[in-house]
Amino acid sequence: MTTAPATFVKGLEGIIAAQTEMSYIDGVQGVLEYVGIAIGDLAKHSTFEETVFLLWNKRLPTKGELESFTKQLRANYALPEGMIERVRSVPTSAEPMHMLRTMVSALSMHDASPNENSVEAARVKALKILGCTPAIVAAFDRHRRGLEPVAPDTSLGFSANFLYMLNGEKPTEAMTRAFDICMITHADHGLNNSTFTARVVISTLSDMYSAITAAIGSLRGPLHGGANEGVMKMLNEIPSVDAVEQYVMDKLARKERIMGFGHRVYKAKDPRAAELMTLAEQLARDTGNMDLYTKSKAIEKIMEREVGSKGIYPNVDFYSATTYHCIGLKLDLFTPMFALSRIAGWSGHVIEQLGDNRLFRPKAEYVGPHNVAYTPMDNR
Amino acid sequence: MTTAPATFVKGLEGIIAAQTEMSYIDGVQGVLEYVGIAIGDLAKHSTFEETVFLLWNKRLPTKGELESFTKQLRANYALPEGMIERVRSVPTSAEPMHMLRTMVSALSMHDASPNENSVEAARVKALKILGCTPAIVAAFDRHRRGLEPVAPDTSLGFSANFLYMLNGEKPTEAMTRAFDICMITHADHGLNNSTFTARVVISTLSDMYSAITAAIGSLRGPLHGGANEGVMKMLNEIPSVDAVEQYVMDKLARKERIMGFGHRVYKAKDPRAAELMTLAEQLARDTGNMDLYTKSKAIEKIMEREVGSKGIYPNVDFYSATTYHCIGLKLDLFTPMFALSRIAGWSGHVIEQLGDNRLFRPKAEYVGPHNVAYTPMDNR
Repeated sequence: MTTAPATFVKGLEGIIAAQTEMSYIDGVQGVLEYVGIAIGDLAKHSTFEETVFLLWNKRLPTKGELESFTKQLRANYALPEGMIERVRSVPTSAEPMHMLRTMVSALSMHDASPNENSVEAARVKALKILGCTPAIVAAFDRHRRGLEPVAPDTSLGFSANFLYMLNGEKPTEAMTRAFDICMITHADHGLNNSTFTARVVISTLSDMYSAITAAIGSLRGPLHGGANEGVMKMLNEIPSVDAVEQYVMDKLARKERIMGFGHRVYKAKDPRAAELMTLAEQLARDTGNMDLYTKSKAIEKIMEREVGSKGIYPNVDFYSATTYHCIGLKLDLFTPMFALSRIAGWSGHVIEQLGDNRLFRPKAEYVGPHNVAYTPMDNR
Repeated sequence: MTTAPATFVKGLEGIIAAQTEMSYIDGVQGVLEYVGIAIGDLAKHSTFEETVFLLWNKRLPTKGELESFTKQLRANYALPEGMIERVRSVPTSAEPMHMLRTMVSALSMHDASPNENSVEAARVKALKILGCTPAIVAAFDRHRRGLEPVAPDTSLGFSANFLYMLNGEKPTEAMTRAFDICMITHADHGLNNSTFTARVVISTLSDMYSAITAAIGSLRGPLHGGANEGVMKMLNEIPSVDAVEQYVMDKLARKERIMGFGHRVYKAKDPRAAELMTLAEQLARDTGNMDLYTKSKAIEKIMEREVGSKGIYPNVDFYSATTYHCIGLKLDLFTPMFALSRIAGWSGHVIEQLGDNRLFRPKAEYVGPHNVAYTPMDNR
């Protein structure tokens, strides 16, 4: 038993609930590191595959290790038998996040030993889920467009293969790189709600599928992963770059939130945004979406002038929205993209939790009556 | 910002993470109350339907209110269109908890507005999930036995209807009552791991389906709902009542755990066990399972003699196992039974959380390196 004080802290704010060797956030300085490496360096030099290896192994791979890891991941690109039929049975009206949560849960029923929880087995399951989730999302999006699924191409990296399965044609290098940076920058972020959810669920010694399924359910909430949709909706609402000033000033006057600005954790510039910003510009130019980019830049400029001194800066969602739009993703696929990447973080945290587990079992403060008699029906 | 101390408490033990008006536990005195009413009184006098009304409304219903509530619940007994096909598509080898988690998640895709989160809408969704989950479990169990599903009978209460859909014949009164008491006594239990999971997930303003799906994933872990299976396995391991003494003493000598004894929360007699014990005897007699019951009583007697002074007593699982076995449930349906009942608690907590929400976002303590350079591949 610990001697922790039994005071109620709403939302567990300020409470340390786990230890991790994966990511470090300094919100005041605007620092995000994965295993000590600045996120900006990873966004510049690394790939998603290498970043996942880093998060799961707490060090960068050698060339041979990365090749072997990439090979294992690619061996999981294809869906287990029967899963395509399951994806096809989803109503085309379904929100992709409900679909994704259901299909990742269903993967457990296509695994002969879904409950294995050794650290070794958990790594195998993590690779399986991370490897084939892009195929689930791509197959569903094609299904609702009335198109046949495209089989994965194991000669392609994680990001290129996803875009290929989604669109049926190989993506440009700029698209692939921009998408890969989105994957790198969203892979892990301390004990956010969905990551915490995954650790809480695995702490009953449940299983990887239960933990990742639960985390997807958490991520879909508008107070969490759902936020990047809001940026795109806002950009669509503003008719032209000339209308930006009025739009932003009106919102600020009404004390409404400008989507894509500020973050509960960061009080400085979001370190994930910089590299994406550069790429968003190139991508917007390549795909004829410069109006979107210039609107974004105009919003950023006005916000800097008006509220920059208050520590409100563009966050990672602000530029990932433009990126996803330029790649041709529909709005309701933005949060699933977040999930594709964050599976790396969730499963890494599950592995950490399994390595030194203690059941999460906090207390509730009961604030109702006591010693109430059971009144028979006729006397109520 | 709060001033909570930033010390790491493993498993959040002793930390208060939520307030509730639903259940109160005093583990030292062996007290469990739902909205102030002793669990023993509810087990004696109430029904599952009335208990759910109590938990969701924080008071007992009038006759008219209970009738109306029961009617609404029964209107949800039948699965939404398309769900039976989904249940039938599950591999017959699937563990029922993986099936249940996947099917409850899939229910969201059969709801035209799954994301509605007003307290009013959440109550409607809770009734929907609670009402039709028995049909999911029953249909799947019949599917794997090669039998057609049995349509619900809306003239029957929750427990009788489930047993009817499962077995295709109306249960005896003793069976129904014993099962109903299992449902009453498992409906809520403070901030256990799955209930906490549900509150964490809904705090992103996600949705009822995501929260209940996540909770099912938590419950299936052997450190949580998976425990009642262990009691039955133990009873099956002991060949006869004469072998009990040797079995228990050997286990104790090896310092192994006797399943169904002791509880992280209760240091006194588990207040949920008493009423069940009486009924388990009658049921065992009725169904020709008295050997099971006498073995249980013999284990209890030896444990009382050996470790009773240490506060180790039979818990609720010890007698619910006999009950479920006598009713004819297969071992792997024991944990799903726990889920059927606990959906009442989970959804009640979701409704409480929505009424006064704050995003759960604890901190992680980063224990890895800092300022690590990104070493190019060739230099590793």
